[in-house]
Amino acid sequence: MSQLLYEGKAKKMFTTDDPNVLRVVYKNDATAFNGQKKAQFEGKGRLNNAICTKIFKMLQKKGISTHYIDTISETEQLVKAVSIVPIEVVVRNVVAGSLSKRLGVDEGETLGRTIVEFYYKSDELGDPMINSDHALAMELATKEELAEIRRLALSINESLQAFFAEAGILLVDFKIEFGKLKETGAIVLADEISPDSCRLWDKETHEKLDKDVFRRNIADLPETYEKLLKRLEDVK
Amino acid sequence: MSQLLYEGKAKKMFTTDDPNVLRVVYKNDATAFNGQKKAQFEGKGRLNNAICTKIFKMLQKKGISTHYIDTISETEQLVKAVSIVPIEVVVRNVVAGSLSKRLGVDEGETLGRTIVEFYYKSDELGDPMINSDHALAMELATKEELAEIRRLALSINESLQAFFAEAGILLVDFKIEFGKLKETGAIVLADEISPDSCRLWDKETHEKLDKDVFRRNIADLPETYEKLLKRLEDVK
Repeated sequence: MSQLLYEGKAKKMFTTDDPNVLRVVYKNDATAFNGQKKAQFEGKGRLNNAICTKIFKMLQKKGISTHYIDTISETEQLVKAVSIVPIEVVVRNVVAGSLSKRLGVDEGETLGRTIVEFYYKSDELGDPMINSDHALAMELATKEELAEIRRLALSINESLQAFFAEAGILLVDFKIEFGKLKETGAIVLADEISPDSCRLWDKETHEKLDKDVFRRNIADLPETYEKLLKRLEDVK
Repeated sequence: MSQLLYEGKAKKMFTTDDPNVLRVVYKNDATAFNGQKKAQFEGKGRLNNAICTKIFKMLQKKGISTHYIDTISETEQLVKAVSIVPIEVVVRNVVAGSLSKRLGVDEGETLGRTIVEFYYKSDELGDPMINSDHALAMELATKEELAEIRRLALSINESLQAFFAEAGILLVDFKIEFGKLKETGAIVLADEISPDSCRLWDKETHEKLDKDVFRRNIADLPETYEKLLKRLEDVK
């Protein structure tokens, strides 16, 4: 018996016979601006699944703990069941998007250091930015869990930067979530890493290879994701 | 020769004959909502100067470094010259104001721990909230300076809580700024602490004894500040 456990903007999660394993289905929906802009794109689910699978396998090879188990069809993965930490973690190497507006710094400016931001996961409140004190006061995570989340986020950033650099792509920023494994409580990456959740620019031309082509009406989304997947083909 | 160096919303700063000493004049102006609401109140400058003087003397007795030197008239202080760290530091013990909206938590709820927030001091950008990574990337302060600012902010909070508690007053939150002494580079408190910049509630009734009476049209501002000063009269 497989029950729908959760339907998000770009994926669905189903139970499996094993209570510690869930099935993820990548949808063809694209949304932006907290769900205010919506569209469907034939092939998007398949492309995100393929890109994300490649990235999970790379991260696991580097010893980074993720919820990923296996890819079982063009649009489906099996993942470990977790309880999600209600913090969206954003890692930034180059100024873009909301950070550009927030700090009055031009998009494309390189930062002297990597920035890790926490957002309180709440559609109702518009995912407000918070700091570690807020997270602790709201009991979203313990001090040790926050430290582990930060350590993992920076380590994932390093691996991703190297991975994309091999394809001539600049990792501008990305958003991830973490979860606690049902079995052990260990913190693991429990979110897709895909062009839906990363900003990826061609290193030379700064051509966008991510969901900003949809957000900003720059190019066709499936064509862009297909182009990205092709460029990642030979990267190990 | 005394030159106007800076005019803020509630005070003016003038040079003195000593390049390491400035003269502060507390004004009768009150502003709220980033300057969108404005008014003048006879006696406000005098009241803020009296309250702030009492607090600076208390903090200095507790060994906390401030820019305060002396009070030289009903509305004037002498302070040490500093270069201001462009971060507004907000310390919160009870949920109120913007935090209530940001996190969807009712005003008046006590937090399990003290929250320290950093805001990038920029009227143009509306003083956006930032975290330590942003502050370091923007080179607003060094890592050591940020740690010292946090340490001082928490230590000031403890002293203030005890001080106001003696008058039956709850310190809900407050905003301060820090500066680096021109002579040594040491970080010191370089901002008024007054009912303009603190939220202060009667411990029992939660009657407001701060600028929220003006922001929210609850009561007369000078009468409220006078009441506060009177309650602090016997506190050492």
